[in-house]
Amino acid sequence: MEGGKKVWYFPDGYLPEKSTAGAMEAHEALMLFNTHEKPVAVKIDIYFSDRAPARDIAVTVPAERIIALRMDHPEDLAGNRIPPVTQYALRIRAEEPIVVQFGRLDTTQNNMAYYVGVG
Amino acid sequence: MEGGKKVWYFPDGYLPEKSTAGAMEAHEALMLFNTHEKPVAVKIDIYFSDRAPARDIAVTVPAERIIALRMDHPEDLAGNRIPPVTQYALRIRAEEPIVVQFGRLDTTQNNMAYYVGVG
Amino acid sequence: MEGGKKVWYFPDGYLPEKSTAGAMEAHEALMLFNTHEKPVAVKIDIYFSDRAPARDIAVTVPAERIIALRMDHPEDLAGNRIPPVTQYALRIRAEEPIVVQFGRLDTTQNNMAYYVGVG
Amino acid sequence: MEGGKKVWYFPDGYLPEKSTAGAMEAHEALMLFNTHEKPVAVKIDIYFSDRAPARDIAVTVPAERIIALRMDHPEDLAGNRIPPVTQYALRIRAEEPIVVQFGRLDTTQNNMAYYVGVG
Repeated sequence: MEGGKKVWYFPDGYLPEKSTAGAMEAHEALMLFNTHEKPVAVKIDIYFSDRAPARDIAVTVPAERIIALRMDHPEDLAGNRIPPVTQYALRIRAEEPIVVQFGRLDTTQNNMAYYVGVG
Repeated sequence: MEGGKKVWYFPDGYLPEKSTAGAMEAHEALMLFNTHEKPVAVKIDIYFSDRAPARDIAVTVPAERIIALRMDHPEDLAGNRIPPVTQYALRIRAEEPIVVQFGRLDTTQNNMAYYVGVG
Repeated sequence: MEGGKKVWYFPDGYLPEKSTAGAMEAHEALMLFNTHEKPVAVKIDIYFSDRAPARDIAVTVPAERIIALRMDHPEDLAGNRIPPVTQYALRIRAEEPIVVQFGRLDTTQNNMAYYVGVG
Repeated sequence: MEGGKKVWYFPDGYLPEKSTAGAMEAHEALMLFNTHEKPVAVKIDIYFSDRAPARDIAVTVPAERIIALRMDHPEDLAGNRIPPVTQYALRIRAEEPIVVQFGRLDTTQNNMAYYVGVG
């Protein structure tokens, strides 16, 4: 996958407080893009300001697919729960080069705002 | 084209529902920038979460021009229609190095929000 | 200047219509950052969708300074006027590596929105 | 730290005027992400449009941690005060590769807007 990378970093995670306002709540998501013709195994590490990292969260990206992981959904992170209103950072390690983007996925509002990671 | 690339990836496409509010609707666009003195042939592949990719959509970027393709306009994608409210990702392959940017092109609102791709 | 580059591309320029609302109007700006201990000469080329590019607009970035050029101020572009509501793209060529960022500079509003270039 | 860098540049700093509106004021922050198993020493240089840079502000990033420095808090910058409503730029030099992101950290508003640096 020319141009992909095996390691990606996203320093600026910060889940907002849960709110019930609006049809679709603000949240953060990780997009994993695999153009290979085979699945790619990925490990996610979550770093914090004041505690040891959570390591080796295993995810598989299917062949020729884009998947989105919700950072506020423990079921997308093998049961790991990221606390809200807490600075966190992500390291993504893939066994083959892929492309990863971190962002706020909020598509129903006109004034959608968007985090973007540096990779 | 020093600094350009032949392959670009944009993991976070998501067309909003069509709405009729406002003078200019929100939409996503792909900017293709060719500083070469000759046209450059480009192929666009669209990837999804739950189905096989649409491949080899052919586009030509004229010499020394910037063009913008509307992702919600099938006529800009050789007749391919991207379904709204669906996660998609793009791979752009050019025969010569070019520069590509993916974004939300919405210039008439004061509180314009903007997707940006990682390339 | 380790990590700087001699050539930068920004595909997504689009000046809004002039408006008189608000204390500070929305606009686009180009930030040129030179950490060298000597001035660096820069040439700016402006590309369009439907006409030949405007080339070789000369700018000098002073030693150890950051400067911001307003894209809607012809005096910042050696007299060149970029038409509003028109897609344009920029190529920046510097004689020494520098760092360039293209963006919307609008710092007085709470819901500031921001273009960012891919470089 | 595969993929990290020892030098990072952020050309577009601009602290807003202090305001007292809202539960959390808009501000700029620098996120420093160190996945090494040892602390990393960092020097921050602040550049301006019209004066000499402030150099060699020393910061240490603890092992396996993400830290966020508030640009409007002199105590986060070894006592250096960045004037508001003034264009500034940052150079970050680390003794080992790290990942740095510059942004506006404002997570409590629905229409959060976000600066992002080019690195």
